[in-house]
Amino acid sequence: MDDCGTDANYMERALTQAKCAYRIGEVPVGALIIKENIVVSEAHNLTGSMKDPTAHAEVIAIRKASEMLGDWRLIGCTLYTTLEPCAMCAGALVLSRIERLVFGATDPKSGMVGSLENLVCDERLNHRLEVTSGILADESATLLRSYFKDRRS
Amino acid sequence: MDDCGTDANYMERALTQAKCAYRIGEVPVGALIIKENIVVSEAHNLTGSMKDPTAHAEVIAIRKASEMLGDWRLIGCTLYTTLEPCAMCAGALVLSRIERLVFGATDPKSGMVGSLENLVCDERLNHRLEVTSGILADESATLLRSYFKDRRS
Repeated sequence: MDDCGTDANYMERALTQAKCAYRIGEVPVGALIIKENIVVSEAHNLTGSMKDPTAHAEVIAIRKASEMLGDWRLIGCTLYTTLEPCAMCAGALVLSRIERLVFGATDPKSGMVGSLENLVCDERLNHRLEVTSGILADESATLLRSYFKDRRS
Repeated sequence: MDDCGTDANYMERALTQAKCAYRIGEVPVGALIIKENIVVSEAHNLTGSMKDPTAHAEVIAIRKASEMLGDWRLIGCTLYTTLEPCAMCAGALVLSRIERLVFGATDPKSGMVGSLENLVCDERLNHRLEVTSGILADESATLLRSYFKDRRS
């Protein structure tokens, strides 16, 4: 399987997480972390349910993966997320030493991996990630639009 | 008591947290959150002990305060931290809607509240914080220098 196919497959699984979030009234964002082609964690946004502003899909996935691997350094891992990470999540990605980030839709309002800034490629910080974007972006954006339309109606 | 006195008193308590971190081999950073002059949470860095790259003092304090107050929006709260927040913590401060940030020492290498960027005063994001810096900065910087000197020896 080529890299593109692999990325789309993992992003499909992250989208499944995003759909779980949607069903319980959370902003539909999903994430998962893989290492050597094994899924070590997956999560979706839970800020409302957990009453925790830090409970974004990416942060939960990072915390679960660290627990699973027994190390705060997620060396050799890739994080897939359906939406461009915010400042908190981009900062957590740098701190965790994750090797690669793959995301779906861009977030022009608060995205910090190309939209407003690019915190995960900042030469001044002590770690940088390889980034691939746009994987299943339309599916992710459609899901988010539908969620916010429902909330307004 | 004037504001300056109050800030120094709360920062003294955050420094006590930082010293707890030092004693267990963690980077000595401490934080606390107050609302209407009541301490709602306090924490210190626990990344090593918890094997969790997101376990910075500020993030733990935010999570605890949200749990204590039963709301992910920390309206009317002030967070005190002994060190200028990193990207993850600055992002978490914005997401949590905390009103005011008071910090001690600056962090030229990864500080995102004036050193490299200022993410908590970014007009493009949907929340901004009032910031006071330099409170007991020397005490905080001395503690951090001592910790890193110990680690190198």
